[in-house]
Amino acid sequence: MWKVNPPYIGAAYYPEGLGQERIAYDLAQMKQTGINTIRLAEFAWSRLEPEEGHYDFHWLRTVVEQLAEQGIGTILCTPSATPPFWLTDKHPEILPMRYNGHRTTHGARLHYCPNNLVYRQYISRINTALAQEFADCESVLGWQVDNEAYLPFGEGCFCPDCERGFRHFLQERFTDIADLNEAWQLTLWSQEYPSFAQVLMPRPDTPHHPSLKTAWLEFQEQSTIAYIDEQITALKRHTRKPVSTDMMPLPFIDHVKANRQADLVMFNHYCNEEGMHHVLFWLDYLKTVKDTPLWNTETDPNGNGGTTLMGYKPQGFCTANSWLPMAFGGEANLYWHWRGHRAGHELMHGSVIDSAGRPTYTQLEISRIAQDLSRCARFLNGTKLKQARIAIHYSAYAEKLFAHQGICEHPGYWHVLFKHFYMPLIEAGIRVDIISPDHDLTPYACVISPLLACLDEYDLRERLEQWIEQGGRWIAGPLTDVRNRHAAKFAEPFGSLEQWGGIRLKYFAAANAAYPFPIQDQEGTALESQLWYDGFELEGASAYAVYGENAHEFAGLAAMTVNNKGAGKITVLGTVPEEAVYIQLVRSYMREPAQSGAGINASPNVLCMPRSGPAGEGSIVIEYRNRPGWLTIDAPAVNLLTGATLQGKVEVPAFAVMVLHNLA
Amino acid sequence: MWKVNPPYIGAAYYPEGLGQERIAYDLAQMKQTGINTIRLAEFAWSRLEPEEGHYDFHWLRTVVEQLAEQGIGTILCTPSATPPFWLTDKHPEILPMRYNGHRTTHGARLHYCPNNLVYRQYISRINTALAQEFADCESVLGWQVDNEAYLPFGEGCFCPDCERGFRHFLQERFTDIADLNEAWQLTLWSQEYPSFAQVLMPRPDTPHHPSLKTAWLEFQEQSTIAYIDEQITALKRHTRKPVSTDMMPLPFIDHVKANRQADLVMFNHYCNEEGMHHVLFWLDYLKTVKDTPLWNTETDPNGNGGTTLMGYKPQGFCTANSWLPMAFGGEANLYWHWRGHRAGHELMHGSVIDSAGRPTYTQLEISRIAQDLSRCARFLNGTKLKQARIAIHYSAYAEKLFAHQGICEHPGYWHVLFKHFYMPLIEAGIRVDIISPDHDLTPYACVISPLLACLDEYDLRERLEQWIEQGGRWIAGPLTDVRNRHAAKFAEPFGSLEQWGGIRLKYFAAANAAYPFPIQDQEGTALESQLWYDGFELEGASAYAVYGENAHEFAGLAAMTVNNKGAGKITVLGTVPEEAVYIQLVRSYMREPAQSGAGINASPNVLCMPRSGPAGEGSIVIEYRNRPGWLTIDAPAVNLLTGATLQGKVEVPAFAVMVLHNLA
Amino acid sequence: MWKVNPPYIGAAYYPEGLGQERIAYDLAQMKQTGINTIRLAEFAWSRLEPEEGHYDFHWLRTVVEQLAEQGIGTILCTPSATPPFWLTDKHPEILPMRYNGHRTTHGARLHYCPNNLVYRQYISRINTALAQEFADCESVLGWQVDNEAYLPFGEGCFCPDCERGFRHFLQERFTDIADLNEAWQLTLWSQEYPSFAQVLMPRPDTPHHPSLKTAWLEFQEQSTIAYIDEQITALKRHTRKPVSTDMMPLPFIDHVKANRQADLVMFNHYCNEEGMHHVLFWLDYLKTVKDTPLWNTETDPNGNGGTTLMGYKPQGFCTANSWLPMAFGGEANLYWHWRGHRAGHELMHGSVIDSAGRPTYTQLEISRIAQDLSRCARFLNGTKLKQARIAIHYSAYAEKLFAHQGICEHPGYWHVLFKHFYMPLIEAGIRVDIISPDHDLTPYACVISPLLACLDEYDLRERLEQWIEQGGRWIAGPLTDVRNRHAAKFAEPFGSLEQWGGIRLKYFAAANAAYPFPIQDQEGTALESQLWYDGFELEGASAYAVYGENAHEFAGLAAMTVNNKGAGKITVLGTVPEEAVYIQLVRSYMREPAQSGAGINASPNVLCMPRSGPAGEGSIVIEYRNRPGWLTIDAPAVNLLTGATLQGKVEVPAFAVMVLHNLA
Repeated sequence: MWKVNPPYIGAAYYPEGLGQERIAYDLAQMKQTGINTIRLAEFAWSRLEPEEGHYDFHWLRTVVEQLAEQGIGTILCTPSATPPFWLTDKHPEILPMRYNGHRTTHGARLHYCPNNLVYRQYISRINTALAQEFADCESVLGWQVDNEAYLPFGEGCFCPDCERGFRHFLQERFTDIADLNEAWQLTLWSQEYPSFAQVLMPRPDTPHHPSLKTAWLEFQEQSTIAYIDEQITALKRHTRKPVSTDMMPLPFIDHVKANRQADLVMFNHYCNEEGMHHVLFWLDYLKTVKDTPLWNTETDPNGNGGTTLMGYKPQGFCTANSWLPMAFGGEANLYWHWRGHRAGHELMHGSVIDSAGRPTYTQLEISRIAQDLSRCARFLNGTKLKQARIAIHYSAYAEKLFAHQGICEHPGYWHVLFKHFYMPLIEAGIRVDIISPDHDLTPYACVISPLLACLDEYDLRERLEQWIEQGGRWIAGPLTDVRNRHAAKFAEPFGSLEQWGGIRLKYFAAANAAYPFPIQDQEGTALESQLWYDGFELEGASAYAVYGENAHEFAGLAAMTVNNKGAGKITVLGTVPEEAVYIQLVRSYMREPAQSGAGINASPNVLCMPRSGPAGEGSIVIEYRNRPGWLTIDAPAVNLLTGATLQGKVEVPAFAVMVLHNLA
Repeated sequence: MWKVNPPYIGAAYYPEGLGQERIAYDLAQMKQTGINTIRLAEFAWSRLEPEEGHYDFHWLRTVVEQLAEQGIGTILCTPSATPPFWLTDKHPEILPMRYNGHRTTHGARLHYCPNNLVYRQYISRINTALAQEFADCESVLGWQVDNEAYLPFGEGCFCPDCERGFRHFLQERFTDIADLNEAWQLTLWSQEYPSFAQVLMPRPDTPHHPSLKTAWLEFQEQSTIAYIDEQITALKRHTRKPVSTDMMPLPFIDHVKANRQADLVMFNHYCNEEGMHHVLFWLDYLKTVKDTPLWNTETDPNGNGGTTLMGYKPQGFCTANSWLPMAFGGEANLYWHWRGHRAGHELMHGSVIDSAGRPTYTQLEISRIAQDLSRCARFLNGTKLKQARIAIHYSAYAEKLFAHQGICEHPGYWHVLFKHFYMPLIEAGIRVDIISPDHDLTPYACVISPLLACLDEYDLRERLEQWIEQGGRWIAGPLTDVRNRHAAKFAEPFGSLEQWGGIRLKYFAAANAAYPFPIQDQEGTALESQLWYDGFELEGASAYAVYGENAHEFAGLAAMTVNNKGAGKITVLGTVPEEAVYIQLVRSYMREPAQSGAGINASPNVLCMPRSGPAGEGSIVIEYRNRPGWLTIDAPAVNLLTGATLQGKVEVPAFAVMVLHNLA
Repeated sequence: MWKVNPPYIGAAYYPEGLGQERIAYDLAQMKQTGINTIRLAEFAWSRLEPEEGHYDFHWLRTVVEQLAEQGIGTILCTPSATPPFWLTDKHPEILPMRYNGHRTTHGARLHYCPNNLVYRQYISRINTALAQEFADCESVLGWQVDNEAYLPFGEGCFCPDCERGFRHFLQERFTDIADLNEAWQLTLWSQEYPSFAQVLMPRPDTPHHPSLKTAWLEFQEQSTIAYIDEQITALKRHTRKPVSTDMMPLPFIDHVKANRQADLVMFNHYCNEEGMHHVLFWLDYLKTVKDTPLWNTETDPNGNGGTTLMGYKPQGFCTANSWLPMAFGGEANLYWHWRGHRAGHELMHGSVIDSAGRPTYTQLEISRIAQDLSRCARFLNGTKLKQARIAIHYSAYAEKLFAHQGICEHPGYWHVLFKHFYMPLIEAGIRVDIISPDHDLTPYACVISPLLACLDEYDLRERLEQWIEQGGRWIAGPLTDVRNRHAAKFAEPFGSLEQWGGIRLKYFAAANAAYPFPIQDQEGTALESQLWYDGFELEGASAYAVYGENAHEFAGLAAMTVNNKGAGKITVLGTVPEEAVYIQLVRSYMREPAQSGAGINASPNVLCMPRSGPAGEGSIVIEYRNRPGWLTIDAPAVNLLTGATLQGKVEVPAFAVMVLHNLA
């Protein structure tokens, strides 16, 4: 029986724009390069349904079969990201509308309103036909729905369907318009709406209410997710292969919600050397979304680019970048794309072979990556990434909330999380999960929740309290538990933090770089702090750090507090403390040192991801900063990529990858 | 009889969003903080008229009476800044329109066109009802109309009413369209309009004529002022309490015109540490607008902010900031606002108590300010700020003119005035008035008019000439008297400056930093100059400074000239001279040294505002730069805030305030 | 018979806004200043046709005659750049439309759609009447059509006429819609259009296809040129005087195409001290467009400016700037403008006399320039600029192409050409022509074609090959011959470059400043390179430079190659080499040293433009960087401006001009 095994390595491919001769050439090149997976048809609607109701799947089936003959599996895509001209021409109402009443036009992609039911019917018909056509096709590894679905224009579609939908969304949430007026405090500024049917969409040319704008983003997020869910659910009626949708690391759309109907997480990312560590965050997040291994469905082989090609990427970059998804428990890495385009919006994007069919400068590196993955397949498939015991909350609702109320000046919710709370742990060798508020807390010894403005999603408040009572150690704040589900404040400064934390907020202020507030730990060491200052009085808690004498009105108030609650502990951060204090605090909350990683000490630029399973124990090691590093290996291990046995302190060259298999 | 005496200290308050319990709590906190004034109802239309024609003033009356019981007076506001939904829904034509035909929507504030007569009727009805309701209310200290009324969108409303109004405005000004075409030189570029009914509004998507654009701003200014005047005039029929409107330090709207019907000037400002000295300029201006003491109706207690709170403000800032209006002869300082909002556009703005009712970090400081003001009340109420003998012209028409024709590259009319002509005097301890071209000249020994492009407002040309003839010393230029009332040039380079100044313009050029023109005074000292170069030939005048040898074609021409005219003198500045020369010149024009201030020498960062009256002599001293300063006190005086008697050179700490009462 | 001889020196003049008295005054001043040419009536439509069909040319004729009486010739303009109000009011459809459906309004200039046939009829009528009126007028030196015609809004007009025209344009080009779909690869992203009648204009609010956007710019360019051509052709039926249109150095519109019907090139430019060397490029280009001497129809006498006057320009600037057109073979230099305006969009622009009629600070300098030109007239009129033997291609099509596909990150096509390929030669004293792809290649020993993305304009591919075969030396690349006429790639990396150059592209990459690729010449010297890297394998060529060891995957590949082809040579640049290598390469391709210039060595800041003819041999020398320079004069020559005889190394002061006449 036909079978391709993970790890999957391959690329997106657009045979719809090529003749048979080039396709044959490409198949030979793919074989030679050693890839085993090709993604097809995501934008091919006009070839699949040249006229309304006339489907032509033959060409696609031919390619799928030709690939299978080369031992290459296929990921098939629904073509909904690019409705053809005949469809938008017949139904211009599917085109998304800007706040000013102008609809976008045919000519690019994603030119649809997710709430348009006519459009959804067309999609449903072609998807069903596609799925039926390929239902018997063994080499189809899985299905991708749409492509990088996202809020139209980044801010949502303002068409009449969306207006109606938004009003319905609010009615569902509030039932009575008086409740909405009260929740948003619309008495202020005489803003009250008389009925749901009259609530206005937040046009950018009127400076609308932040709660309205946050609700709008939630509605638009829900619309896009419903659009994706409908496709996934429908496809799953016709196939037993995994179905998902590929998403970028974009804000506003909750990856947990967007993947609820999906069988696995598909992830597209494009990074450069300076931003490769950003990908760590996203993989540490996405690996927690589903129990199944993720598929990295897009990354560039040698340079991002639309009509302009970005600069040369150094040797090794592609190797480290391609192994990242594997290190975080994934099982696929696909490049965008196989062959460069001869014309169009992305004719200068990186590819494995160029538009003339010639190998690009990373083709040999990719071939080596494919070989290496194949060599490690037994170990990779027979082990899984070990569970982390520390988690950091990341909330797509908080992203939306902060987008319309900064609360204080900062470079953005994600940036604060990434810079001050995630990277310090990674560089200290502490393994973490990034989790949605939805995520089960029981696996974790310690959960960190900075800027988690609202605890009222997914019953988090209840689950948190229970988990703490049972022994969890929670690090909360700053700016955590300060807003309700309507993006408004509670009657008191926090929802539960004062009560749980045994504290009372005395004063607050936004940080001012000209007047830094020093804080002192129990030994009296002066520490830096930033972003925000909450000054607490103790009502049962003890102070972990207090504001120093130079902190003016805040002098002597607690800046970080610890309180016992049941079998657990709560630390409230009134400010963003300097890195060393933060790491010390987290370390003190790790029940056993071994939980933090693989028992491996490494330089900050070296990632060690421990694995275990029937195939043994080991780890994937990646240098991700393009500079020399090191790691200390306690017990002897074989690097499966070289066959060398390693122990003790070893050098890890720039962008090096090792797959260590512990000797029993 | 019920009475609150100035100085007034207090805050804006929004009981319309609070229940009775919180209001009661707040009243107790206000009492304890020591404030005596609360501003109410500026945005409360939807609570005051929940449905068209159904007024509900009961809740407001209750709050006013509860405040009075605590000894707290009330400033009542008309709610016209926030028309409720039922009104804009019934009459969408009241919403202001952008140049592209889009009307703004409900959802923020100031969403009205000032020229809409339907809207004005609704306002008239509710204002009349309000005024009648509170006519007998002794604790009402005064009335505020609208809130920070300003040109819609900053550039005006483009609705059909405004179009009609603008054409009418031009017809009133020119009578015959041929006169408009001639005044604006519309023959150039074939621009002539055949009739007033066809003149176009200056849409930003067509690069319109600067005279048209300036006239447009004048029309929009007039519209907003007429809108305010109508409210003030109507209210005054029903109340004997002072009525005004609160304005920010914004350009384009002439504070003199806007306050013509008002009984006193209301001023809103928000500054930070770096910008506190800007407030000096505005107070030196606004104090000259009316004979009555101004009310500082808004300033932040601890940080500006809408949905984002600005950074911590240092101790003492609030004290210095709150005393500034008093120092400049005002009698009220109100914070925005008393209690933080729980939701909405400004939920992170600074407040005296937070949204949960807890004192913020400056509440104690504010309480001390209230005590201090109370302690000094007898002296403050029994003295007045002494009249300055030097004035600087500031013209809102020049602001509008320069907005559409820079003439040369500069950071803006106001900035040039502030940096090069106002602050040097303030830092040298020379007391000035900033005056509108409308202002009486007789009190002044010397008037300074830089960049006063047009002398043809308010009969200024005639009044200036007369005042000079009778002994006035006028410092004019650069770029003064260079445009007529149509924002066009005269037939000659100046209107009257050559004739009055005994000079003839030979050459002009805009300054080029790469080619500085040195100037020399009579001793041959080389001086810097900037911005603009007019080079004069002398026709009766004498040269105060000439362009040096390195000034190329300008070498030897006069850069600053002096001429006698009647009993007075005219100095024409062809350029912006360096600070020292400017100060020397002004000093030479002060008839008696005592005119310049209070006989007090002080460091540049210390403000000394001399007072006298039935309660004696003295001054208010404020350090406004947050750094140590000093002053020299000639005769012994008591600092009323400490009781200490001071004489000689004393230190003035950062942000310190002193109220000096001279010992007789 | 009435006669004014070149060189022409003068200004634009707007008597339509002046009374008879001022005109008389101006005429006297012109005479005294020594100018001999005045440009009239370019914006005077409303005075020439005050009402539809009622022409009034009398006032213009009077001015022309008065000027002639002073010995001053006239350049007459058609007034089409400023349709009067009555015309746009009656026919609003002539106003250009933005992509959002909004038409611009009356109130500035160029407010017409060039494709509007109604507008063209009105122009045709007035132009015919004007031309007939002045047909007998001897003092008219020539005619200018419109003024600085350019794509509406810089991106084109989106009115229904343009939509129709664009579809027709595409149909003409492709005949069958399937060909368009194939040429632009519209199968990708399901973009195919069903018919020409449905192709969409590239609205900026949809991210359209780069080939569509490039074709749109070509269509808009063609529209503007057709509009100009129609006027020129019609005028030429009525006059034997030269007719042209004045253009700025703007991208997108091909000066060759725009001047095809013109009798000479008219050029408007405004530069400052920092940008004067940019003008050299444009003059080196425009001098090759026509065989007739160009007319510099606009430059500022002392500062550009609309409503804001730019800073002082140093002495000598005007002299050097005014002589530049003469140095490049031109015969006219006209200032914009004679007398400053009293009001309007450009009331602060530099002028020879100000709005009050007083001489500005450069009037004396201009008078001296006029004298000097007159003094040299015999030499200038009796000699011509010598033909250069080196040419650089500059393509307006490449400008349009790169505007919508950068290919790699760079500051723009023109900037790369100017900085890396033009200025190094100029500073090395190597004389070049900048030529359109249309230009005859036979005069040149060497042609340089960097970033000439497409060789398929004007049969260039065929003509290039033939010219090389016959001995031409061609330096091509980088990024040359990489796109076809549809802004798409060829099937292979280049159209002909591999075949002609004897090379095969192995790898390509965009440069990354963090990873510079060193290249080595034949002596092994390490050289810098930038922008782009093509790495070639040799298939007959020899390597002029190879990528060094640090060039990663590219190490050892050729970076610059040389190949023989017939009697000629082809050098392909795979990268932008450092300046010294480039100059060395060009020098090696110059057949005789004398071709490069006038046998004069000079410092980089000194321009020497050799002339010869019946009046002898010599050169015009200009220092264009405002710093001291030098030149070496081999044979004795007289500087006609001073009478001094010069030989050997002489100093050239900042902004100095010399007219050297070789002693026989």
